[in-house]
Amino acid sequence: MSIKNSELKHLIKSQRLNYPLEQIFYKDLSIYKLDVETFFYKQWIFVGHESRIPKKGDYFLFTIENESIIIIRGENGEINCFYNVCRHRGSHICLEKEGNARTLVCPYHAWSYKLNGNLKSARLMDSDFDPKAWSLNKCHSKSFGGLIFINFSDIPYDFDEFIKPIKPFIKLHGLGEAKIAARRTYPTKGNWKLTLDNFHECYHCQPSHPEYCEVHSPGYIQAYGAGNNTGPSSEEFSKELSNWNKHAKKLGYYTGEYSDEKLSNFFRSAERTPLGKGKLSETKSGKPASVLMGEFKEFDGGYTTIGSSPFNSLLMSNDFATIFTFIPRGPLETEVELMWLVNKDAKEGKDYKIDEMVWMWHKTTLADKRIIENNQKGIMSKKYTPGPLSTMEIGLKKLKFWYLNQLELTLEN
Amino acid sequence: MSIKNSELKHLIKSQRLNYPLEQIFYKDLSIYKLDVETFFYKQWIFVGHESRIPKKGDYFLFTIENESIIIIRGENGEINCFYNVCRHRGSHICLEKEGNARTLVCPYHAWSYKLNGNLKSARLMDSDFDPKAWSLNKCHSKSFGGLIFINFSDIPYDFDEFIKPIKPFIKLHGLGEAKIAARRTYPTKGNWKLTLDNFHECYHCQPSHPEYCEVHSPGYIQAYGAGNNTGPSSEEFSKELSNWNKHAKKLGYYTGEYSDEKLSNFFRSAERTPLGKGKLSETKSGKPASVLMGEFKEFDGGYTTIGSSPFNSLLMSNDFATIFTFIPRGPLETEVELMWLVNKDAKEGKDYKIDEMVWMWHKTTLADKRIIENNQKGIMSKKYTPGPLSTMEIGLKKLKFWYLNQLELTLEN
Amino acid sequence: MSIKNSELKHLIKSQRLNYPLEQIFYKDLSIYKLDVETFFYKQWIFVGHESRIPKKGDYFLFTIENESIIIIRGENGEINCFYNVCRHRGSHICLEKEGNARTLVCPYHAWSYKLNGNLKSARLMDSDFDPKAWSLNKCHSKSFGGLIFINFSDIPYDFDEFIKPIKPFIKLHGLGEAKIAARRTYPTKGNWKLTLDNFHECYHCQPSHPEYCEVHSPGYIQAYGAGNNTGPSSEEFSKELSNWNKHAKKLGYYTGEYSDEKLSNFFRSAERTPLGKGKLSETKSGKPASVLMGEFKEFDGGYTTIGSSPFNSLLMSNDFATIFTFIPRGPLETEVELMWLVNKDAKEGKDYKIDEMVWMWHKTTLADKRIIENNQKGIMSKKYTPGPLSTMEIGLKKLKFWYLNQLELTLEN
Repeated sequence: MSIKNSELKHLIKSQRLNYPLEQIFYKDLSIYKLDVETFFYKQWIFVGHESRIPKKGDYFLFTIENESIIIIRGENGEINCFYNVCRHRGSHICLEKEGNARTLVCPYHAWSYKLNGNLKSARLMDSDFDPKAWSLNKCHSKSFGGLIFINFSDIPYDFDEFIKPIKPFIKLHGLGEAKIAARRTYPTKGNWKLTLDNFHECYHCQPSHPEYCEVHSPGYIQAYGAGNNTGPSSEEFSKELSNWNKHAKKLGYYTGEYSDEKLSNFFRSAERTPLGKGKLSETKSGKPASVLMGEFKEFDGGYTTIGSSPFNSLLMSNDFATIFTFIPRGPLETEVELMWLVNKDAKEGKDYKIDEMVWMWHKTTLADKRIIENNQKGIMSKKYTPGPLSTMEIGLKKLKFWYLNQLELTLEN
Repeated sequence: MSIKNSELKHLIKSQRLNYPLEQIFYKDLSIYKLDVETFFYKQWIFVGHESRIPKKGDYFLFTIENESIIIIRGENGEINCFYNVCRHRGSHICLEKEGNARTLVCPYHAWSYKLNGNLKSARLMDSDFDPKAWSLNKCHSKSFGGLIFINFSDIPYDFDEFIKPIKPFIKLHGLGEAKIAARRTYPTKGNWKLTLDNFHECYHCQPSHPEYCEVHSPGYIQAYGAGNNTGPSSEEFSKELSNWNKHAKKLGYYTGEYSDEKLSNFFRSAERTPLGKGKLSETKSGKPASVLMGEFKEFDGGYTTIGSSPFNSLLMSNDFATIFTFIPRGPLETEVELMWLVNKDAKEGKDYKIDEMVWMWHKTTLADKRIIENNQKGIMSKKYTPGPLSTMEIGLKKLKFWYLNQLELTLEN
Repeated sequence: MSIKNSELKHLIKSQRLNYPLEQIFYKDLSIYKLDVETFFYKQWIFVGHESRIPKKGDYFLFTIENESIIIIRGENGEINCFYNVCRHRGSHICLEKEGNARTLVCPYHAWSYKLNGNLKSARLMDSDFDPKAWSLNKCHSKSFGGLIFINFSDIPYDFDEFIKPIKPFIKLHGLGEAKIAARRTYPTKGNWKLTLDNFHECYHCQPSHPEYCEVHSPGYIQAYGAGNNTGPSSEEFSKELSNWNKHAKKLGYYTGEYSDEKLSNFFRSAERTPLGKGKLSETKSGKPASVLMGEFKEFDGGYTTIGSSPFNSLLMSNDFATIFTFIPRGPLETEVELMWLVNKDAKEGKDYKIDEMVWMWHKTTLADKRIIENNQKGIMSKKYTPGPLSTMEIGLKKLKFWYLNQLELTLEN
């Protein structure tokens, strides 16, 4: 069943530069398992916003493969993360997706743990039993600007280094003063890489995403639709961008772009760009769907996108943020979770309208789900061979290059 | 997981002549996969009738394993067959089971193909992109008498040689001047060989198929129920057949039998025989369910059966044809598709009644589905061993002999 | 996919004495398959009560893995057990879970068998066909006190030796003069060993089973809750037990305990103990739910438990018996079947009330299903490691010791 390292190395080398991956990368179980270890478990993954657990003992669960992680607000307001596995016989401790617990009590034999994970009590143990040795297993976690990131590595990449280039973009939008307005999940029957291929190019936007094309300008879609310089340059958009940069700077707002070197451990990118002409927000009307967030005093007509890793993207108007989380659920399935953030003081119905806010990405993600699923079906054919990429699929090429490079490094170590 | 060639060769040799196959042949995944390659993908498979796609751009899909095939009426009325896989990123192109398309446009990035499979347009490609190199992958297909056959081999067996011995039987019934009156599918939880074992003997007809026994004479069922000479000879039926042959010849209709040698690449058979006494058609009343087809000027009381391969059978009265397609859907599942053809000019309700026409094979196929599923369950037991075959199971023995022989040849090459 | 014998031997040796098993034992498919062969197929398994099939030809089916067993009342009142596999082509013969058949007729080709399994008739066989050679395959079975046990071994352990130590407990309760009042099944998504771990300790009873704690005394639960000496001794209960033994003996009823040596082929135990203070039966009110059974002339306030193998337990008040059967259904699933027996002459509604009788174990088994499923989920985590057992989990330790020992013996042979 399992592909050998030498075969995989050979396969990596044989992938063609200007073409998508071969079939095996999109369906093989052993490559999938290696992927989860090499990529998902090594990256800092955004899993939720602090506003979801405001009070001591508030928690929610995040699941990936056979792991369930408890993200819980501790005694002193800190965020703690534990594997949801009792140290006695291994039962799940928290059974609901979210809730509040003053003590983490295992429902099986009532071993109970403090909010910092220390074992508080266990009945009827042998006299030599040492409770200190049986704390809950921690999962690494860090927060910035209200965003909770977790990391499954034993020795994770440095968080400060990770967050540094995307910090000013997050700060500008004041995500630390935000709250969750809506959450939706889109189970998608496609390999995680196929799902991300879709997200990293905007060649399909014109035929498939009328809503996206209503909000964003044709020049932007061509040149930047899936991140900075993911398509051929557009003179028109260069002018738009340059004019808008002056405008935004005059208003005192952060502008600019960031993109990781291809050989970094990270695959981050960020940029600020103008929305389509006359649009203030990523809505059907172009009018705001909520009140201003963060440092904004007035609408600057801008759009901020951050890719913190392949598994998360933050797409932000001045008034709300749409956050994507891509969770591998098997070689042929990915869960796409969308979360919308607004100013923490905004009132639903009065200050923001959920329908208007979710309109674009809800419709677009449903369309992508369908697209990816039909792509996966075709890729399963023995006649599938990678075809030549267009000039608008540079983002996919970058992602593939980084993926193959990181995988190769892993096999060498 | 996978059985070795040497083991399989040994297994083939150890199968006993007068007994069904051993358990492993009816459940093993690696044998199943080899079966699909060796048998289904090498035979000419009937997948539909031309009347289903009368107009330019009309299409339907045929699926087997991970393959989806587009069968489409081309610009000049010809039938074209393509793998449903875009040459760009591999998406399925046609998403509906049937429809009409003037151009085959991929729903992902709008690459579009002509009805002959040539790439018509692809936006924003590099300057060195050669559209001529990116036509849709063709699947071999040929038609005769309105029947569309496809073949998954790179170099298929010669179609003319294939169709030759069954041609006069098809011609007689004028299938080229027919139309589809009904289609039904019967998903059956049994290995494809177990499903065919059932179809190739009529030992079970008496206890299990009262409808079949109403229409066909006891002598026929014993001697010919599952094809010519699949049971012990019946003096009574020999007389019936001989008398009927004279009658049919006098009317000017084709008669006779055909059967492949056991060591042929093909497993074809055909014959014309009389229906039960006084019956004009394979219906409950014995009266016609539709108007005459093909060369018939009056009912001759005959029944024509053709097995074009193990995966297709055509069973025909003078007024309608019932066509079987057996599609492997995994080691433990087979889809049985039934299609009924009538004269293209017949009007439903007036000239033909669907209920009367489907009565026998609908009821009988439902019964066989149940029978095969219970057979598969028992075969999974570790106590299952093949038992001795009766004198009415010669058809099963022939099929098994051919199967083992072809499989052995494949392993040697 | 498959674990090697040498690896498994090493794994067995590396399990820690005072801890549950490691993850692999609770999920691995090859260990699961070995388990079924080594344990389930070698033990005498209780599968039903004779009262279920009172008349000649009455039968029911028992299924495990791919095996279906017909348990049928024969011509002379004896119980016969056959594999539900026709000797001709292997079809299941009995298709319903229970019924009555004067002859076992295969629904496929009508081969028919007598109630003793001998082939009675087969149509149209070759002249050298010998019906005597084609009887149904027998499965070993024995009855005692109305309890039907079957054994899948070719050469089973001696039944008389097996039944001997538990005989007096069965006799006392007169199970031979009983009938089935209710049967319920609880499909549980947990490995069979995890399901049994739960059954073999009462450390979880206090937090999880309020109903159980209502009926049984705290001292009993601590010391005996999962069988004799499965917890730390309780002075209070020792006194209770000693007093009750005198009381029961005075009434003339059998008392005492039995427990297999750890290195026996069997894992049997049995004991008589007092119910909680003032309780006559294992009901919410403590009052009887039915009339007296067996040798009882008056209620003695006692509770009899028998474990005939890891796969069966009999828990009995004076007025009814609750019988557990644990059937492995895959590495991650176990079916728990409960059957309640009452005096054969008792009338439902008048003499016994099903709701009152099933109350305790229905509620408790539902709770255990939930507990085991959450335990299995946590055990799948890569962070699961066995934790130290409490002083109330001695039963689990015993079971684990026996399991590892028997598995090791199997690997050595």
